[in-house]
Amino acid sequence: MTRPTIRSVAARAGVSKSLVSLVLQGSPRVSPERRAAVLAAVAELGYRPDPTARSLARGSTRAVGLLLDDLRNPWFVDVLDGLRPVLHAAGLRPVLAEARSEPEAPRTFADLRVDGLVVVGTLPDLGLVREVAAGVPTVLAGTRLAPGDPFAVDVVAGDDEAGVRLAVEHLLTLGHRRLAHVAGTGPVGDLRRGAVEDAASAGGAEVVVQTGPMTEDTGHRAGRALLTRPDPPTAVVAANDAVAVGVLAAAADLGLAVPGALSVVGYDDTSTAGLRAVSLTSVDNAAHEVGRLAARRLLDRLADPDAPADLRLVAPRLVVRATTAAPVP
Amino acid sequence: MTRPTIRSVAARAGVSKSLVSLVLQGSPRVSPERRAAVLAAVAELGYRPDPTARSLARGSTRAVGLLLDDLRNPWFVDVLDGLRPVLHAAGLRPVLAEARSEPEAPRTFADLRVDGLVVVGTLPDLGLVREVAAGVPTVLAGTRLAPGDPFAVDVVAGDDEAGVRLAVEHLLTLGHRRLAHVAGTGPVGDLRRGAVEDAASAGGAEVVVQTGPMTEDTGHRAGRALLTRPDPPTAVVAANDAVAVGVLAAAADLGLAVPGALSVVGYDDTSTAGLRAVSLTSVDNAAHEVGRLAARRLLDRLADPDAPADLRLVAPRLVVRATTAAPVP
Repeated sequence: MTRPTIRSVAARAGVSKSLVSLVLQGSPRVSPERRAAVLAAVAELGYRPDPTARSLARGSTRAVGLLLDDLRNPWFVDVLDGLRPVLHAAGLRPVLAEARSEPEAPRTFADLRVDGLVVVGTLPDLGLVREVAAGVPTVLAGTRLAPGDPFAVDVVAGDDEAGVRLAVEHLLTLGHRRLAHVAGTGPVGDLRRGAVEDAASAGGAEVVVQTGPMTEDTGHRAGRALLTRPDPPTAVVAANDAVAVGVLAAAADLGLAVPGALSVVGYDDTSTAGLRAVSLTSVDNAAHEVGRLAARRLLDRLADPDAPADLRLVAPRLVVRATTAAPVP
Repeated sequence: MTRPTIRSVAARAGVSKSLVSLVLQGSPRVSPERRAAVLAAVAELGYRPDPTARSLARGSTRAVGLLLDDLRNPWFVDVLDGLRPVLHAAGLRPVLAEARSEPEAPRTFADLRVDGLVVVGTLPDLGLVREVAAGVPTVLAGTRLAPGDPFAVDVVAGDDEAGVRLAVEHLLTLGHRRLAHVAGTGPVGDLRRGAVEDAASAGGAEVVVQTGPMTEDTGHRAGRALLTRPDPPTAVVAANDAVAVGVLAAAADLGLAVPGALSVVGYDDTSTAGLRAVSLTSVDNAAHEVGRLAARRLLDRLADPDAPADLRLVAPRLVVRATTAAPVP
């Protein structure tokens, strides 16, 4: 099967190609009967306008704004690596901004007349994104809306409940029963914390929680606090890899061997986790696939602006490295 | 002293503010005498048009394209942190692209009608930047042109000869005489290699060199090769921190204690060097200051498009951490 073209739509509807174009542009210069015939042919053939051709026709920029929350977290670059080839193949050109240092970036992108916007990661404030999304097709990638948020927007994200379950069940299988979780803030932090608590209690394990921004410093501080308790945990699930690296540093400060005396699991499986000197067990939440599907979702949205908003979750997997083992009895 | 304004120029020249504006816009509707009077006042007062006001007047975007070679290297984000506040203060808005994955990005920025372009790091190919620079004010940051390159462009970079000297002299002072250098490719790689060889020979030390792209893998491979020689080096100067982390991993593979049996120095002092688990001695080549000065240079260039191209080098400093010590005799 070849992709239906404007020519095949015209043949099916018994009209000219230029009349099909007029209908697709919403021109008022078409009779209701001929409009109905064209739209019926579009539906029967499953025709979708090519976004590149369409944006060229409108004289648009073919640029897509990619708003990344934090350029210091390599996870965002992994998402970008998934987004980029799909956009390139559609003739679209990514331009980037870092959300936490450029809070006005959604407006900048709108002013530069980008064709679309992908917001990657959890922003402190979605207010401006909501405004811009009214005029610019927008997809959220690698984040979740808070429960009950009325923002009707496409979302592609890793399935964090499933990912956290993989991490906790790995530790339970190794024999750990005293767990700790260093939790992040925001919707993703909340989601991961809830999933850790559910999975631990389902396995009959206790879990103590410390919370903070998802940074190495948080991990270091929380790690020291947890590991100097009278009854310290034998394993820590960190909200992300940066936090996990901080926990590892706290263990080293206290002379605790990893994984002999303490197991640590990160989240995101960033390039830091793979560094030989770190070799962190971590949950690969499919950043590349999240990026790829977010780009595809944006192309679909450009082709069909009126489709209902869509939530797509991508399955994660656990990457076991050198920081997890059975607890010493 | 307050900054001269268009009002003070008008007063000095004995003309109206709007006539000064006409002269600055190159309007032909001004007599040669009055033009000369205005330009004399501009020179006497050292007046510079405010680039923001000027770009608003031309109906431009106030966006500045920042082309970063490699988003996985945190050094680029450090440069960005230096650039950003200066651009913001001038009412300019950064948009980013990664050069190695978006070779067409200079053209994208030009098509989006950015007011200026800053190229950060060493690009594999400056061809398109040269073309775009003919129409868009451009500054290179954190890189150098090859010797004799005729490209007349502003450059702001760390003083790599001085930085390498700091690293090598630190090792010589500790007593090392058998050095190795894992060198990078391109003008910056060449410059650093030449400087290592000069500083080593000035100190009566020998140096063996391995070359490759500036990645952890290169460091790991070169490290294994160097450390399994019959007469292995007691210290390695790496082309950058990523390479140094690879060398550390090779030492760990071979059971060589750092810094007991091997000293390692990185370059760039990225956030990786500061991770507690790495704690790498490294040369801070003032990424933040390079960014700050590159942004200032761009503002100057916007204000004075005809000034001659400028090369500015920023002094580096050595950050001694846990990977360097005296060699075991």
